[in-house]
Amino acid sequence: MSTTKTINLASRPTGTPTLDNFDLTTSDVGSLQDGQVLLRATYVSVDPYLRGRMSDAKSYVPPFQVGQPIISGAIAEVVESKSDKFKKGDHVSGSLQWKETQVARAEGLQRVDPEQAPLSAYLGVLGMTGLTAYLGLTEIGKPKAGETLVVSGAAGAVGSVVGQIGKILGLRVVGIAGTDEKVEMLKSEFGFDAGINYNTTENMRKAIAAACPDGVDIYFDNVGGPISDAVLFNINKFSRTINCGAISVYNDTELPRGVSVQPFLVKNSALMQGFIVSDFADKFPAGVRQLAEWLRQDKLTHTETVREGFDNIPQAFLDLFDGKNKGKMVVRI
Amino acid sequence: MSTTKTINLASRPTGTPTLDNFDLTTSDVGSLQDGQVLLRATYVSVDPYLRGRMSDAKSYVPPFQVGQPIISGAIAEVVESKSDKFKKGDHVSGSLQWKETQVARAEGLQRVDPEQAPLSAYLGVLGMTGLTAYLGLTEIGKPKAGETLVVSGAAGAVGSVVGQIGKILGLRVVGIAGTDEKVEMLKSEFGFDAGINYNTTENMRKAIAAACPDGVDIYFDNVGGPISDAVLFNINKFSRTINCGAISVYNDTELPRGVSVQPFLVKNSALMQGFIVSDFADKFPAGVRQLAEWLRQDKLTHTETVREGFDNIPQAFLDLFDGKNKGKMVVRI
Repeated sequence: MSTTKTINLASRPTGTPTLDNFDLTTSDVGSLQDGQVLLRATYVSVDPYLRGRMSDAKSYVPPFQVGQPIISGAIAEVVESKSDKFKKGDHVSGSLQWKETQVARAEGLQRVDPEQAPLSAYLGVLGMTGLTAYLGLTEIGKPKAGETLVVSGAAGAVGSVVGQIGKILGLRVVGIAGTDEKVEMLKSEFGFDAGINYNTTENMRKAIAAACPDGVDIYFDNVGGPISDAVLFNINKFSRTINCGAISVYNDTELPRGVSVQPFLVKNSALMQGFIVSDFADKFPAGVRQLAEWLRQDKLTHTETVREGFDNIPQAFLDLFDGKNKGKMVVRI
Repeated sequence: MSTTKTINLASRPTGTPTLDNFDLTTSDVGSLQDGQVLLRATYVSVDPYLRGRMSDAKSYVPPFQVGQPIISGAIAEVVESKSDKFKKGDHVSGSLQWKETQVARAEGLQRVDPEQAPLSAYLGVLGMTGLTAYLGLTEIGKPKAGETLVVSGAAGAVGSVVGQIGKILGLRVVGIAGTDEKVEMLKSEFGFDAGINYNTTENMRKAIAAACPDGVDIYFDNVGGPISDAVLFNINKFSRTINCGAISVYNDTELPRGVSVQPFLVKNSALMQGFIVSDFADKFPAGVRQLAEWLRQDKLTHTETVREGFDNIPQAFLDLFDGKNKGKMVVRI
């Protein structure tokens, strides 16, 4: 029986995760049963939401178990198949363990086509990232041309796609990011109308007001925390906030506190709604078709940060919290 | 030309309003023009939202002007009419100035029928209060039989109606109020399943968990502040919060802060939405019909606190912030 490199959860993090929370082991691949495929990982996705699964707090997905492999979105090549669904040489995407080689049920996997788009795009703009941006913005944000959209974490995987879709849909788009370089990229690469560097801006509330002369109609929130507090002061009547993530507070060990949102919501008949892409699974096929069309038409740019090597997956994940990625962060195996 | 007692905004409050923010003057009634009616006030409504209009902060309604009369919902009798719409002796409801006698345009007034319900009910369960409860709960809360509803400010004008409608619609209803007497009333008079006295409960988070063994599906929030923070910990996946008011923080001079809601919304795909009844004006006629039917069927109890005398309107308003009302607070003139 062959073996494979495996990355497990070694311990649950307190506050910011470190490399010590992971360990690299060798485990048996196991034998292939009917309905299964043997996979060799080619690209592994690292995403902020994985931080939640490293804790054992109640969440929308069950926590990872200590001593067991981490699981995330990945692309893999079929090495051997005992399923009618896939044959050797096919490329698939799915939720996979952090293993170089693994046996997986064919059922949970989707075939992806390297002729249509680079394989890693299926972890990004044509995968959960793109669907999160598209479905969050359209299903909860309900955008109307001419409205103003603010995106936090704008240079990140989801944020950069949200902004581009906002432009396609005729919105004024303002992005918030953490370096001047990222802010420049928002405008030059992704077509945002304006960008704000939260690390060098003293008064975010005023900066947002200046960048949004007609107020904020839609806020796509990837970060939570003080940036989101500053946006609150600028929301319009009937504004919609998509609460897609709260990376700024995921590592907090104390309960994060901030400006009370209730008076702002009451005053503005405003909506805030948590968004998890998996709640909208019935809309995935149509979403992917729309995103692929925009990609073909060059209306969407696929931006990614690619790290190399299986052993470097944990570090790539940790770097998300320092904002070291531009666009989607993936690891090529 | 005859004169009338008038209550004006004397100054804008800082923090909790006091009697000094009002002054009682005598003003001219003015002469009656075509399309107008001369009214004698019979019941005046006092409501927490008026606090917002006493400030000059941006809000959903323009602020009152210093030196000008306060305006609120009221019932009046037509003393003289130069309108085809009303005749002497009719009873009407509308947004009226705090004056014993006044001239008003017939257009903005609705006839109310003292045979169908006590006149003051048109300020309460058949007026904005009842419509706020009914439309907030149904339009944003989207209740399904068997779900759990938590109501804050439960013994207040809106809250007591929300809870009763919740029971009619087959929900488990838990109310939060500030005295044991009110909590008792929630159960004995309004049919709530359980009540919590926030003034004597040490750990609200646990008390809510105990009262809601299946978690909270709908939270009708009249108060904001720490009570709402405690509810957050108990919300279910896909829960809906109706942000109807935030009386607990209306008098704060510093920006109120609390637990960050974003991580809870993300985790639970949960919704929070500000609710102002005036946004749903097209649903008023059907709403009043439904409420009147429930009232006739004795499924709804009309509870009010009635103060006496025009001069006592400001004190009745101030007493709202000390929770001295049970159900709707009105002043009989």
